[in-house]
Amino acid sequence: MNICINGTSHTRFGTTNEGIGELAARCCTRLLDDTNLSIDEVGSIYISNFSSHFCAQCHLPALLTSELGVTKESTRVEAACASGGAALKQASIALSSGLYDAIVVVGVEKMSARSQDATSILSYAGSEEERRHGVTFPGLFALMARSHFHEFGTSEVDIAKVAVKNHRNALSNPNAQFHKSITVDDVLNSRVIASPLKLLDCSPITDGAAAVLLSSEEVARRLTDTPVYLTAIAQVSDHLSLKNRETLTSMPAVIKAAEQAFDVSGLTPQDVDVAELHDCFTIAELIEMEDIGFCERGAARELINEGATEIDGEIPVNPSGGLKARGHPVGATGIAQIVEIVRQLRGEAAQRQVPDAEIGLCCNVGGAGGTAVVSVLSR
Amino acid sequence: MNICINGTSHTRFGTTNEGIGELAARCCTRLLDDTNLSIDEVGSIYISNFSSHFCAQCHLPALLTSELGVTKESTRVEAACASGGAALKQASIALSSGLYDAIVVVGVEKMSARSQDATSILSYAGSEEERRHGVTFPGLFALMARSHFHEFGTSEVDIAKVAVKNHRNALSNPNAQFHKSITVDDVLNSRVIASPLKLLDCSPITDGAAAVLLSSEEVARRLTDTPVYLTAIAQVSDHLSLKNRETLTSMPAVIKAAEQAFDVSGLTPQDVDVAELHDCFTIAELIEMEDIGFCERGAARELINEGATEIDGEIPVNPSGGLKARGHPVGATGIAQIVEIVRQLRGEAAQRQVPDAEIGLCCNVGGAGGTAVVSVLSR
Repeated sequence: MNICINGTSHTRFGTTNEGIGELAARCCTRLLDDTNLSIDEVGSIYISNFSSHFCAQCHLPALLTSELGVTKESTRVEAACASGGAALKQASIALSSGLYDAIVVVGVEKMSARSQDATSILSYAGSEEERRHGVTFPGLFALMARSHFHEFGTSEVDIAKVAVKNHRNALSNPNAQFHKSITVDDVLNSRVIASPLKLLDCSPITDGAAAVLLSSEEVARRLTDTPVYLTAIAQVSDHLSLKNRETLTSMPAVIKAAEQAFDVSGLTPQDVDVAELHDCFTIAELIEMEDIGFCERGAARELINEGATEIDGEIPVNPSGGLKARGHPVGATGIAQIVEIVRQLRGEAAQRQVPDAEIGLCCNVGGAGGTAVVSVLSR
Repeated sequence: MNICINGTSHTRFGTTNEGIGELAARCCTRLLDDTNLSIDEVGSIYISNFSSHFCAQCHLPALLTSELGVTKESTRVEAACASGGAALKQASIALSSGLYDAIVVVGVEKMSARSQDATSILSYAGSEEERRHGVTFPGLFALMARSHFHEFGTSEVDIAKVAVKNHRNALSNPNAQFHKSITVDDVLNSRVIASPLKLLDCSPITDGAAAVLLSSEEVARRLTDTPVYLTAIAQVSDHLSLKNRETLTSMPAVIKAAEQAFDVSGLTPQDVDVAELHDCFTIAELIEMEDIGFCERGAARELINEGATEIDGEIPVNPSGGLKARGHPVGATGIAQIVEIVRQLRGEAAQRQVPDAEIGLCCNVGGAGGTAVVSVLSR
């Protein structure tokens, strides 16, 4: 069965005074308005949200139906920072069952009110043992970066270039949190968070929502002339703790999910025209490029230095600005990635448009790689 | 497509020193051992869990695969206190898609370490407005009870009898939290929590896990001679706040979910031989009986006084002891209800066996009724 994505919605990422329910509802309403679909035709709503610790709200399914004024099946799906991908996966399964014709998937997080202890809340996506030893996520990704530097000769300058590229891309994304150009020196001179990662290697604290409408091809053909197909989506969880991985320079769940997604789609990494990767920290973008198979292990730095991951390069990565510059409202991130790829495949990405993009890929990662969701989209 | 439940697992509810991951993993391992199924044959794992505020763990999908030592699709599903029902719904959709042959659904909550502020954490399942005015769940259900008393003449004695029955039933449930017989006077003389609800009208704080194995009929026939069918499952969310309901004496989401489940199954409330209802507070059992259609609105008290809801009555309710006496580890509750009904339909319920039970029903409620999941099972 062909699953189509025929509508997207994306709030301006940053900070908002709205409640989390209002924020999610506004994003859904905009989605339905833009797609000319009545909420009555939507069979089910999936909500991706990482943690109630940010908003003290543990019943989003009913909060959202309350805000939308509907009586409907509504479900929250969570897999840490890969919640968006996991919610999309559930929606795709539901459409495959034939029990639903149209489904709304909305991702939302409102973090700014808890910016003081956000790193602590985010650490709940790691293992208790790691937290007990004081290792929060910047520390975990710093360990991965140090290992990558040691094993492959990747440098602080190489990873800084990821931040520079993603900030540059975000300049032409009206929904990005940051519209600010930065240089490699800005990154290198920014405050050390967990060596070798500096402030500008890290994704920010963000409020935001993103939504997509998934449907059968029949419904999609009625609503739009430019449907995008969710060709494959694979979700894998393995080890929560870094200590249980054979290497720190790779995320096995990403490798496995990518293998499965390529297997189902009959495509290869070389077929991908544009990718949104999970650059929660700059080093993550390199590791994912290698794990997905855009290059050999250790070779991502070469692609970055050659400009291959720029919008006009061989394999453009994070044209939206990525988590780094678009922002990272955790539960919304996996959906925001899909929104960007859909807009790229439809040719709606304006100044950041990747020319002739036909095949796109999203990689949404939970925690330090304990969960990964890889999606392949095509037009 | 016929969906079968061919394995159940249920920890002793109460308190445990295990971590939440260990607790869930132990329950899953027992499930697989008892069903003679290898974890390798399980296509996906669904985890029902209400709130990370109890254990500060926001990545249960990877924690559970870590504990089980597997690489697999693993997803947390949440809909407040109806998380178990919502996870079961997702698993049933996944099996209907034909993409999976066997799925583990495990519900887990570990609340005892936070017993001091559990009521506060539970209040996150309500609306922010209600919380701001100091109304936590005992208060919300007290409002519903007062309205029911006013409108239908239901009394404190009537609802106390629910607690007495459920405690009596739990005496023969080895996995129940309480093995303690109580009287109507015990309930009436227990401490007032939110008038008219007393301590013994309220479900307790509990640690526990419950799991079921769902599969296609083909797999089920290989594993067991006594499969139980998940004949229908319906999930509905509407209003989070009580103030948006037309009446306080009914839960529209329960009415709607029950209607849908009966519609799909082709059955009526009168066909049900045994039910597990969501008695988070005693009044809830009465309201659900009426909303599901076991009797007219306002008439549940008569059934209770006639003994119709006893194990040997016309429509036995909560033979397991219910949330009141089996215990209420929130994320596990919806699955524990299914475990009990499966065991009843298989004739495995020992001293609490409902004679010749062929059709069973579970009603799992989120918050003060903002979400409801109604399942119909048959043998």
